[in-house]
Amino acid sequence: MYPISFEKLVNILEKLPGVGNKTAQRYAFNLLENSQEEIDDFVEAIKGIQNIKRCKKCGFLSDEDECLICKDKSRITQSIMVVAYPQDLVAIEKTGSYKGEYHVLNGLISSSKGVFPQDLNIDALLNRIDPSIKEVIIATSPTMDGEMTALYLDKILKDKNILVTRLAHGLPMGSSLDYADDLTLIKALDNRRKIENG
Amino acid sequence: MYPISFEKLVNILEKLPGVGNKTAQRYAFNLLENSQEEIDDFVEAIKGIQNIKRCKKCGFLSDEDECLICKDKSRITQSIMVVAYPQDLVAIEKTGSYKGEYHVLNGLISSSKGVFPQDLNIDALLNRIDPSIKEVIIATSPTMDGEMTALYLDKILKDKNILVTRLAHGLPMGSSLDYADDLTLIKALDNRRKIENG
Repeated sequence: MYPISFEKLVNILEKLPGVGNKTAQRYAFNLLENSQEEIDDFVEAIKGIQNIKRCKKCGFLSDEDECLICKDKSRITQSIMVVAYPQDLVAIEKTGSYKGEYHVLNGLISSSKGVFPQDLNIDALLNRIDPSIKEVIIATSPTMDGEMTALYLDKILKDKNILVTRLAHGLPMGSSLDYADDLTLIKALDNRRKIENG
Repeated sequence: MYPISFEKLVNILEKLPGVGNKTAQRYAFNLLENSQEEIDDFVEAIKGIQNIKRCKKCGFLSDEDECLICKDKSRITQSIMVVAYPQDLVAIEKTGSYKGEYHVLNGLISSSKGVFPQDLNIDALLNRIDPSIKEVIIATSPTMDGEMTALYLDKILKDKNILVTRLAHGLPMGSSLDYADDLTLIKALDNRRKIENG
């Protein structure tokens, strides 16, 4: 019933993750209300995807060969934090408490999804390891795939004689102890620390 | 931190209704995985919005001056069903139980949103009313704005000496009576019908 141009628009929007037919239609009707200028902006933004590459050094998103973080001369180059996805890098950056460099794997080793080490940005990581690097912080999520990837990286980095660390696991701040799951409680107990007085 | 092209993409996607920053990022990362061909298709679909007009006769979406329904010679031209939005027309069409023509108001009279009769596709409706039209079915939603619009249309159509009807209100099929709200129950009671055998 809808004109072909509209059906095409809905079909394309339906390909976005988690978007069903109803939501795609809602987006399409919203786009119909846009001015010609807004449509042009939308088209430009989509076309801009062509300019987005992976940083040759760390794998983060970048408009150029090297990303904004790798180009930043104020970063401490002695430590590399390994994250799975660009979003994770951004989450860490937002805290403002890490000043080293990053390495984005762009995925996690996953037996269920059939993702193997060679599918990830791991070779580039190994190429970055030289005597100037003092620490590699593995910051993958504490999920099954994240743990698997961390173990794999730990194994191959150990031979390189550098300190390999991992983000701490435990109770999230502000959470209620009785709502924590068993695994989190076990980790929190295992990793308990002596209270240090000022 | 993200490259400018990526930020622009997220900003544009955030303008879709109900899409926040997290969802826009999710869409953006998904689009990044697309092939050049898929990106081109997306761009074409967005550009296609320019081809979508309102049918000159009924106000429904159309690629041409007249929509697919108004061009369909098999429709019964004696009755016009008035709906608020194109989606409503499609919902009725899907039932397959209405063979007349439609008129899409493209909105509802709303005191809260400041929408007045002159903002809607009502003049074109009045122009369509001639002695060949036997019935106008008002199929606005049973909401405050929908009721207000129905009352207004009923008032201006009465002078034209045509039968004006309204979709029935009552219990939705398959619903549980004790979950129905008071207004629905009152309507269902008011509009009760004699059970007809065979």
